Amino acid sequence: MLNFNFQNPTKINFGPEEIKTISKEIPLDARVLIVYGGGSIKGNGVYQQVIDALKEHTYFEFSGIEPNPTYDTLMKAQTIIKAEKIDYLLAVGGGSVVDGAKFIAAAALFEGDDPWDILAKQQTFTKALPIGAVLTLPATGSESNGNSVVTRNGNKLPFSSPLVRPLFAVLDPGVTLSLSDRQIGNGVVDAFVHTIEQYLTYNVNGKVQDRFSEGLLQTLIEEGPKALAPETKDDLDVRANIMWSATMALNGLIGAGVPQDWSTHMIGHELTGAFGIDHARTLSIVLPAVMKVRREQKREKLLQYASRVWQINEGDDNTRIDQAIRLTEQFFEKMQVPTRLSDVNLGSSDLDLLVERLAQHGMTALGEKGDITLDISREILTQAL
Amino acid sequence: MLNFNFQNPTKINFGPEEIKTISKEIPLDARVLIVYGGGSIKGNGVYQQVIDALKEHTYFEFSGIEPNPTYDTLMKAQTIIKAEKIDYLLAVGGGSVVDGAKFIAAAALFEGDDPWDILAKQQTFTKALPIGAVLTLPATGSESNGNSVVTRNGNKLPFSSPLVRPLFAVLDPGVTLSLSDRQIGNGVVDAFVHTIEQYLTYNVNGKVQDRFSEGLLQTLIEEGPKALAPETKDDLDVRANIMWSATMALNGLIGAGVPQDWSTHMIGHELTGAFGIDHARTLSIVLPAVMKVRREQKREKLLQYASRVWQINEGDDNTRIDQAIRLTEQFFEKMQVPTRLSDVNLGSSDLDLLVERLAQHGMTALGEKGDITLDISREILTQAL
Repeated sequence: MLNFNFQNPTKINFGPEEIKTISKEIPLDARVLIVYGGGSIKGNGVYQQVIDALKEHTYFEFSGIEPNPTYDTLMKAQTIIKAEKIDYLLAVGGGSVVDGAKFIAAAALFEGDDPWDILAKQQTFTKALPIGAVLTLPATGSESNGNSVVTRNGNKLPFSSPLVRPLFAVLDPGVTLSLSDRQIGNGVVDAFVHTIEQYLTYNVNGKVQDRFSEGLLQTLIEEGPKALAPETKDDLDVRANIMWSATMALNGLIGAGVPQDWSTHMIGHELTGAFGIDHARTLSIVLPAVMKVRREQKREKLLQYASRVWQINEGDDNTRIDQAIRLTEQFFEKMQVPTRLSDVNLGSSDLDLLVERLAQHGMTALGEKGDITLDISREILTQAL
Repeated sequence: MLNFNFQNPTKINFGPEEIKTISKEIPLDARVLIVYGGGSIKGNGVYQQVIDALKEHTYFEFSGIEPNPTYDTLMKAQTIIKAEKIDYLLAVGGGSVVDGAKFIAAAALFEGDDPWDILAKQQTFTKALPIGAVLTLPATGSESNGNSVVTRNGNKLPFSSPLVRPLFAVLDPGVTLSLSDRQIGNGVVDAFVHTIEQYLTYNVNGKVQDRFSEGLLQTLIEEGPKALAPETKDDLDVRANIMWSATMALNGLIGAGVPQDWSTHMIGHELTGAFGIDHARTLSIVLPAVMKVRREQKREKLLQYASRVWQINEGDDNTRIDQAIRLTEQFFEKMQVPTRLSDVNLGSSDLDLLVERLAQHGMTALGEKGDITLDISREILTQAL
């Protein structure tokens, strides 16, 4: 096992009726800015539950945070923050809204020249507004980590700080019943690939981490398709298991003390940046190709994955790995996401641009050992055609 | 899944050489009291590493905290705390030392009449000294939870508060190499039974929690005996996996959103209180009897335990449950702990006293459904003869 430092202070309030707990989580004297997206929370009752819970608080609203939130949109929040002396952010939405709130929180108290430097120059900051979250879409884990991704002019850039980790997150699985099949499929696949990026590397004998990861993968494989099937899609336990899996998949725990890959994400980001493909759908396209191209480097873990996650214990090593990759693709197909570039109408003529973008963004040494060069990324993309 | 609120802000610094991180975790202007036990930390080098790390700090020492720490011992620390204006506690030791530090921390700033009321009357308190921990014995999970057990005049009483949860805990698996076989055996069994108490109840479809618990149980079953076998007992990965399992077994995570039992612990506490038997050894005696007496109430989870933890999938239900219980006993035997009251020279004539003590302490409705009466506790003890 590798040395690690792990801390996750986010308080989780999980279950039906938990939205009302925000009335106690947020100090009564706070001046709250509720930040949200396109207004779906007004259709599904979440907005009303939040407003009801905050009836003793002083609050304002900032809406319009889009998927892959943009710098330009987020900076608009600074006007109301200054005018109304906002000192607490409540993010109500999915990963994009929570990510956006994190940048708003850091930018509001940024002491440098230009908040864009937080992303472009990875400039550190020493304070940020406190954030609480009411999660509506289980997927990114943003509700209990310090990570955020912001887009400006087609560049998707990440930043990370414990200062923007939400103080609390409300996870009410009932809230997810109004999500579309596409949102559910994307969310489950996103959580699945987060887990894989921290698991499918090389063996360091981290038995707890491995088994926790395998437990999340198995749960997503079992419960994900149920959330799309007519007879089970309204089952609150199904939604609860997906929601808790997605949070646990990226709250820092399963990756503590083990190597991490993230090449699927980095290559996938270029697919979103260049062609606007949903984040999760870039992952479902890239991951099977990564498994195939990196099968030698990941052999031991691929065999463990085949055995423990898919119960494949018959046949020689290569056959078992092939089966595990095929079952992974079939799981993605059940979640109604693409597994090939051709599924999203991309072909070999698009690869040059993607590799060029990877080079521009410094993505020349990806993977758990930093040995995925641009040539290997091209091989992965070719495999995904 | 049940609703839950979960928060665990303790920072974990895990791995070889991590003791030196305490120099940065504890503020330089703190007046630190190092609290420890009988001095074994001076023999194994841990004391020296702590002192080296604190060379820029102002620190004092308080030693002599015993296993099952007593109120009388712990109250002696108040003299030096007052005289030296101590404002930070560093617990260096196993669960008893950390538990003891928690009571010292609460008592130091207690505003009521008598700190004993924290235990005897479960009186709440609003402040406590900050605590850091350097763990030397993986077992209780005390290093990252808010629980403490203190003994006075043969009464073992618990209290719990987030205010006494350590701010940080250093887990260096190398430190555990100097433990005796008895300490290792006890620690592994303690962690195992902590997990069982949060797992072997009734099914609420908490798939993540179940799989995390099963992962911990499997890890302890695999790694525990290796820590006693001559050819593997110095393997740092073995120690690391045990250490991380023990912390995860009682940091609140696996029990969030699922029913919990704790009857084995409550009955076991009386065995320690009345006859001075090591805590873990009371658990290894009581748990198999609880499994046997409560097999109907726990049937579904016992079958899941048999299948997922022990890979028992053949035979009828009762045969599979019998096998799982027998394998649990054999695991305890491998860890060199007793599984019968007769192993510790107790017999049927001792049961009256134990049941009487349970009655005195209000333990009349134990278990995940509160339906283990005194009569059923007697049946469990009889089964354990």
